Amino acid sequence: MAQYGSRLVFPIDVKKKPWEQKLPLHNRWHPDIPPVAEVTVGEFLRIEMVDFSGGGIKQENSAEDIKHADLSIVHYLSGPIRVLDKEGIPAMPGDLLMVEICNLGPLPGDEWGFTATFDRENGGGFLTDHFPSATKAIWYFEGIYAYSPHIPGVRFPGLTHPGIVGTAPSMELLKIWNERERDVEENGLKSLKLCEVLHSRPLANLPSTKGCHLGKIQKGTPEWERIAKEAARTIPGRENGGNCDIKNLSRGSKVYLPVFVEGANLSTGDMHFSQGDGEVSFCGAIEMSGFLELKCEIIRGGMKEYLTPMGPTPLHVNPIFEIGPTEPRFSEWLVFEGISVDESGRQHYLDASIAYKRAVLNAIDYLSKFGYSKEQMYLLLSCCPCEGRISGIVDAPNAVATLAIPTAIFDQDIRPKASKVPVGPRVVRKPDVLKCTYDGNLPITKNPSAMS
Amino acid sequence: MAQYGSRLVFPIDVKKKPWEQKLPLHNRWHPDIPPVAEVTVGEFLRIEMVDFSGGGIKQENSAEDIKHADLSIVHYLSGPIRVLDKEGIPAMPGDLLMVEICNLGPLPGDEWGFTATFDRENGGGFLTDHFPSATKAIWYFEGIYAYSPHIPGVRFPGLTHPGIVGTAPSMELLKIWNERERDVEENGLKSLKLCEVLHSRPLANLPSTKGCHLGKIQKGTPEWERIAKEAARTIPGRENGGNCDIKNLSRGSKVYLPVFVEGANLSTGDMHFSQGDGEVSFCGAIEMSGFLELKCEIIRGGMKEYLTPMGPTPLHVNPIFEIGPTEPRFSEWLVFEGISVDESGRQHYLDASIAYKRAVLNAIDYLSKFGYSKEQMYLLLSCCPCEGRISGIVDAPNAVATLAIPTAIFDQDIRPKASKVPVGPRVVRKPDVLKCTYDGNLPITKNPSAMS
Amino acid sequence: MAQYGSRLVFPIDVKKKPWEQKLPLHNRWHPDIPPVAEVTVGEFLRIEMVDFSGGGIKQENSAEDIKHADLSIVHYLSGPIRVLDKEGIPAMPGDLLMVEICNLGPLPGDEWGFTATFDRENGGGFLTDHFPSATKAIWYFEGIYAYSPHIPGVRFPGLTHPGIVGTAPSMELLKIWNERERDVEENGLKSLKLCEVLHSRPLANLPSTKGCHLGKIQKGTPEWERIAKEAARTIPGRENGGNCDIKNLSRGSKVYLPVFVEGANLSTGDMHFSQGDGEVSFCGAIEMSGFLELKCEIIRGGMKEYLTPMGPTPLHVNPIFEIGPTEPRFSEWLVFEGISVDESGRQHYLDASIAYKRAVLNAIDYLSKFGYSKEQMYLLLSCCPCEGRISGIVDAPNAVATLAIPTAIFDQDIRPKASKVPVGPRVVRKPDVLKCTYDGNLPITKNPSAMS
Amino acid sequence: MAQYGSRLVFPIDVKKKPWEQKLPLHNRWHPDIPPVAEVTVGEFLRIEMVDFSGGGIKQENSAEDIKHADLSIVHYLSGPIRVLDKEGIPAMPGDLLMVEICNLGPLPGDEWGFTATFDRENGGGFLTDHFPSATKAIWYFEGIYAYSPHIPGVRFPGLTHPGIVGTAPSMELLKIWNERERDVEENGLKSLKLCEVLHSRPLANLPSTKGCHLGKIQKGTPEWERIAKEAARTIPGRENGGNCDIKNLSRGSKVYLPVFVEGANLSTGDMHFSQGDGEVSFCGAIEMSGFLELKCEIIRGGMKEYLTPMGPTPLHVNPIFEIGPTEPRFSEWLVFEGISVDESGRQHYLDASIAYKRAVLNAIDYLSKFGYSKEQMYLLLSCCPCEGRISGIVDAPNAVATLAIPTAIFDQDIRPKASKVPVGPRVVRKPDVLKCTYDGNLPITKNPSAMS
Repeated sequence: MAQYGSRLVFPIDVKKKPWEQKLPLHNRWHPDIPPVAEVTVGEFLRIEMVDFSGGGIKQENSAEDIKHADLSIVHYLSGPIRVLDKEGIPAMPGDLLMVEICNLGPLPGDEWGFTATFDRENGGGFLTDHFPSATKAIWYFEGIYAYSPHIPGVRFPGLTHPGIVGTAPSMELLKIWNERERDVEENGLKSLKLCEVLHSRPLANLPSTKGCHLGKIQKGTPEWERIAKEAARTIPGRENGGNCDIKNLSRGSKVYLPVFVEGANLSTGDMHFSQGDGEVSFCGAIEMSGFLELKCEIIRGGMKEYLTPMGPTPLHVNPIFEIGPTEPRFSEWLVFEGISVDESGRQHYLDASIAYKRAVLNAIDYLSKFGYSKEQMYLLLSCCPCEGRISGIVDAPNAVATLAIPTAIFDQDIRPKASKVPVGPRVVRKPDVLKCTYDGNLPITKNPSAMS
Repeated sequence: MAQYGSRLVFPIDVKKKPWEQKLPLHNRWHPDIPPVAEVTVGEFLRIEMVDFSGGGIKQENSAEDIKHADLSIVHYLSGPIRVLDKEGIPAMPGDLLMVEICNLGPLPGDEWGFTATFDRENGGGFLTDHFPSATKAIWYFEGIYAYSPHIPGVRFPGLTHPGIVGTAPSMELLKIWNERERDVEENGLKSLKLCEVLHSRPLANLPSTKGCHLGKIQKGTPEWERIAKEAARTIPGRENGGNCDIKNLSRGSKVYLPVFVEGANLSTGDMHFSQGDGEVSFCGAIEMSGFLELKCEIIRGGMKEYLTPMGPTPLHVNPIFEIGPTEPRFSEWLVFEGISVDESGRQHYLDASIAYKRAVLNAIDYLSKFGYSKEQMYLLLSCCPCEGRISGIVDAPNAVATLAIPTAIFDQDIRPKASKVPVGPRVVRKPDVLKCTYDGNLPITKNPSAMS
Repeated sequence: MAQYGSRLVFPIDVKKKPWEQKLPLHNRWHPDIPPVAEVTVGEFLRIEMVDFSGGGIKQENSAEDIKHADLSIVHYLSGPIRVLDKEGIPAMPGDLLMVEICNLGPLPGDEWGFTATFDRENGGGFLTDHFPSATKAIWYFEGIYAYSPHIPGVRFPGLTHPGIVGTAPSMELLKIWNERERDVEENGLKSLKLCEVLHSRPLANLPSTKGCHLGKIQKGTPEWERIAKEAARTIPGRENGGNCDIKNLSRGSKVYLPVFVEGANLSTGDMHFSQGDGEVSFCGAIEMSGFLELKCEIIRGGMKEYLTPMGPTPLHVNPIFEIGPTEPRFSEWLVFEGISVDESGRQHYLDASIAYKRAVLNAIDYLSKFGYSKEQMYLLLSCCPCEGRISGIVDAPNAVATLAIPTAIFDQDIRPKASKVPVGPRVVRKPDVLKCTYDGNLPITKNPSAMS
Repeated sequence: MAQYGSRLVFPIDVKKKPWEQKLPLHNRWHPDIPPVAEVTVGEFLRIEMVDFSGGGIKQENSAEDIKHADLSIVHYLSGPIRVLDKEGIPAMPGDLLMVEICNLGPLPGDEWGFTATFDRENGGGFLTDHFPSATKAIWYFEGIYAYSPHIPGVRFPGLTHPGIVGTAPSMELLKIWNERERDVEENGLKSLKLCEVLHSRPLANLPSTKGCHLGKIQKGTPEWERIAKEAARTIPGRENGGNCDIKNLSRGSKVYLPVFVEGANLSTGDMHFSQGDGEVSFCGAIEMSGFLELKCEIIRGGMKEYLTPMGPTPLHVNPIFEIGPTEPRFSEWLVFEGISVDESGRQHYLDASIAYKRAVLNAIDYLSKFGYSKEQMYLLLSCCPCEGRISGIVDAPNAVATLAIPTAIFDQDIRPKASKVPVGPRVVRKPDVLKCTYDGNLPITKNPSAMS
């Protein structure tokens, strides 16, 4: 009789705080964070995880917790997991670690999530200059479907995925990260014009001991102090995978991660019930706790065999992945275009970020004609299975980006009609998202041509 | 007995030069280019078109024609078509013109196309700093499939679409275009850092009388002189649609174009047998002559009803569209990631263009391990039905872009394997693309870590 | 400069009668019908074809032509085509002939088709006991789409395919066919109970000289007489492929046909713009003239290598095929079930034909609640891209068959609602199909429980 | 704070026997089996279920349990569930009960299943005359994927569904069932020729007290005796839904079930991890225990509003359903055809069951050329996500059925090639399925032309 079912290598008790879990969580990348478990290739494993905030964001009727969220603690990760081959030899730098995502979902008993925008003074988001206030929508899960009382009239199947899956960096890679991100943080506003148009701040998140969790390493020890000062924040996706927020890393997909340290030291977290391409509102997926069932393989020497570094060192690589077979199917899509001309009418040069910003703004305004507030649509386009494409990147000076929205997620027909927008559905969709005041004094980007 | 079949409103004889056609072509946008045909909503129409170069690029074994291509003549368009409703009243500014693409394809007797990279001194492309030479691949069509003797071992169904479909701008809109693009041309290198990283030049293409065709307006007349000096080049996609190069505008899709002048003055051209998201090599689709069968509807007042201007004037809008039902289906995709760190290792801030550049570079180098030259893969990723996604745009400082490639287009299994890359397919895929020397002296971006 | 485009091996002039075409058509299967063309593997070929009736059914407002159709002449086929390998050696018995369908469609200038039910005394159909009258709907094509003035409110993309593609039988195989079909014709009513429930007659169509066309063989010659008496009718699909009416043999599919005679002698015809699984009304696809672009390969010895005979001789094989990549995609389907209990309430044993009959009857009655006549829905379910499945074939005594209908083909929402069927769309959809009287005296199957 | 998560209305402890569960199971259909739970429309519910055999088939290396399986006990069902509307009024006869399948899967801790063929003397199957022995394959689940040590080299995502979901019949409907099925059992062999060709026996399963479980009704009481003698077996699908074995009733699908008794009395069971169309080996899905999460709605008067009875009474209806959005996607299919000629070469008249039998036989023999035993392929085609279609049902005398197999489930390329079947994969795939001797003396259908 064969064994079956997954081996639980990282358990989570959702009733406990992040720091009370049986195995310690971590929220930084560093080669010296010790593994909490050891696994063998081919094993069918289960890793559980808290939501990115470790329960900091509550299922309650207020966005105050979002407004005052402590971002120094993101993201609580489960791991590191040390991976061995069948002979017991660990994954080695230069190998590729193949992670097959066999299944995932919310943790039993915790079938809800949230989508939010941070306050502009505390994290912001892709459109923070338009939407500076903290907002929040709660989502409930009914099997494959999610619905929100704060965005009535939409319901969709999730394309569930872990926002973060990555291997530990080597010290050399960590140093590269810290240097290049410090450079942006210090010089970006002078040297990168896109910073002016995408208003989120800070420009980068440098290592900080505040809020730092390092797994088995005891807080306050000298080792903790040393590592906490060096360890990279988990916010951006990088060479090790990490917070790629790729919505297609769902059931049945395979990720090929470069290995930088012995054992690979795989960590994962930040489970998303669903997310749209771009995760535009930043806290923009349907954030939740969850489980991930997976299998690992080691491709010996695979970094050299398959990946080509693109940059000054052999470490400048990126993961690759294969898409799984059970993504939700939609046959009808309404698509919005954006070009690289900003809200002031200024022409930018082949800038896909600006083109995408405009496509998202166009979609929000369009959909708001069907009875929704713009805040509802900003959150929806962050978390529903919409697709963001770089359609044209060569026709100077305009990049063309598109945002494709599956029409079936709405309970009304949102396509343009030769007649007017139907009167019926135009009734306001209430209640609205939960919303706080914006108390800062940064200017809001106005669209002089928009409807009030 | 009802009538059936399409009405041919714009015929092309592929044996003739662009200026010898029965109806005159045009290659500029201007409100005063007179319509060459009048159609009624609901009619089933056929418009034929030359390839973007008007036959300038030949089906011959050399890339010299690409190297020395006269870009002042792009793109030859069929139209303008004046659109009336069933009462004979023309489309009016403020309306939406719905164009349903019912069918399209190559012109009978002309079932071939080409994909190319321009020389860096003459047009460039997304990766022109890596690939400064002019190159060309010829493609032949077998029904839905295309294959190229210059890129052996791949064959794929086309997602055929017109690169350009648009309405005529009003004078007010034209003025907006010319001003903002002149600003980029004059100030871009100083004020937009992306110009330094995306090396294509010129930054914008301003009106020029050289190579200008204005349809029924006789060359050399004072009217021609006036219009030629004002008329916008067709290269970038803009508020009127235009050269959006959106690969999904294929059979069964519907485009909703804003109307800026009486009659709408619809033009189309630049047919692509197939294109990947981004059309990265610039002359990057499978360029061909072709026919487009379509139907129009007018949504009276639709611009105000459905579109929200995003910018200083009510003209700052973008088209929207619906995707058709017969796009080729692929269930297996290999996906490459890129982050906004450039080849020198420099960190950029949430820059999706740079992230996509890196994803494409990663894909080219990966695929070149399977027996291909990098030039072959650069052209292939420009024209095959690959998908470019903005996966993450909020995790500062890294934007994450992905490039998904359908594995079924190759005659070998290109997925990573626990064993080595199979020896068999690694044989060099010959012949290579047609290639010219690069005679300029701009520096080539070197990737110090790449294989020779 | 390479050659490109297809070589036209069988031209059709739609303005001419079948017997006036440049190359002679045939409408029987026999090894001695001489090839009309010779082709080489790898060539890209174009074969044109008349509609199955050779223009007998007209685009006019009457179903009289259907009622009195001469079925002795079906189906006019283009071919036979003799296939050689690159060394000039013909395909040989025991080989497999791979036919790749690269493209197909209506003939230019003839973009219309028809769907019909034959009179019960002249051909019948799957539900002829319910619908004994001849009916007809005309369809017009707008690129990928078809619509009918006789079935308002539906429009769908075609899954175009040749109803017939097959190789010539050997004399031995032909003899097997004639014997087994004669047995059914003579003894079926006694020995096969399904004949009583599926009321179409005749049970089989035996060779007949009436209406016979044999290609190059002159009518009236002794050779013609001999062959005409032996040659198999084209109505059923058989070991050689033939009239399989498989809707998925569309663009990009590959058929592997057994070869029974030297040269393979490939014939094709009976082009369908679209058809539902089962082609239930018999003249049930959207019948049209058309072109087929294809390529052939020979798999030497492939019958033995790949096919296992299932029956008393090595000739008892069936073709296999691969599905192409551009079938229309639909994400939403409404599905009707049927079990093997007939309209009288009688239980049958695992009979999928009866179960499917019931599923189709259920669907017709359901859809007729949305403003349609049952005749309209019978024709629609014959020709729209609906899917007929054998869902359960083991749960004695009930087979379960299902009929899945893509909801997007309707201009109204046809799904059940907690509220009533919407009043709006329930308006009668006029005009109805063209309809004749049924002048026979066979009993009509009544459904005592149905709405009047 | 809203409630979330499903309410568990029918719990199963997989460590206990069926008769030891907290709520009693039943394995018959009868209006007088009392509900074990009451639910309200809109509630998100969880129903757990044992496998159809109640644990009778073990995860051990022998097929003896299959050979001697007690079929009198199939299928153990969870329910009946009484359904009320929000006012507390129960569903009433004439209503439609909409059941939305929100999620489903194996029970935690029981992630395995089995596929089997029954012995010909004890249940048989679609091809029992070819494969009279009991065989068994064990499957293990890794998230969405299943693999079997007994069928090496295949792995596929499940299209998980409940084999049985149905409402309780009224006494009137029950009487109709018993009468028509008794008629088949008593007269079928004489009057239905298909019985001779499909050799499974018995022809029907009439009520029997042996093995009967009636939920809350105590065994041995007079009430139990009465009901047990009347209650219908659960094997065939019928007007109430029941054992439809429709593989597409998966995540996100909606079933509309007719209501025949007050409260609807919904029951479900027989969970399948995966199944092919037809479930050909009878015990042919991947059978498992499982959970089903669902929501109900009542459409008042919906039977009359939407369903048309087809038969002598208003009760002769069938359910309808909608397909969900997350079915596994496959783009490449190899398809086998069958026509209604049986293995002896005898022609049948438009018999889709025989055509499908031949298509399945063709597929088994074809695939066995790639290193598999026929028994392995018979089980695989029963349980993998293959599609069985009625392609042609009018071209007398041949019905054409097709069986489409997704090629991606194999670890080798199973498509025909111009070269031979590759030698590599042709190695025998060991171990084989578990297999018993067949000790009966019924004749085995021989295929004289088959390979040994």
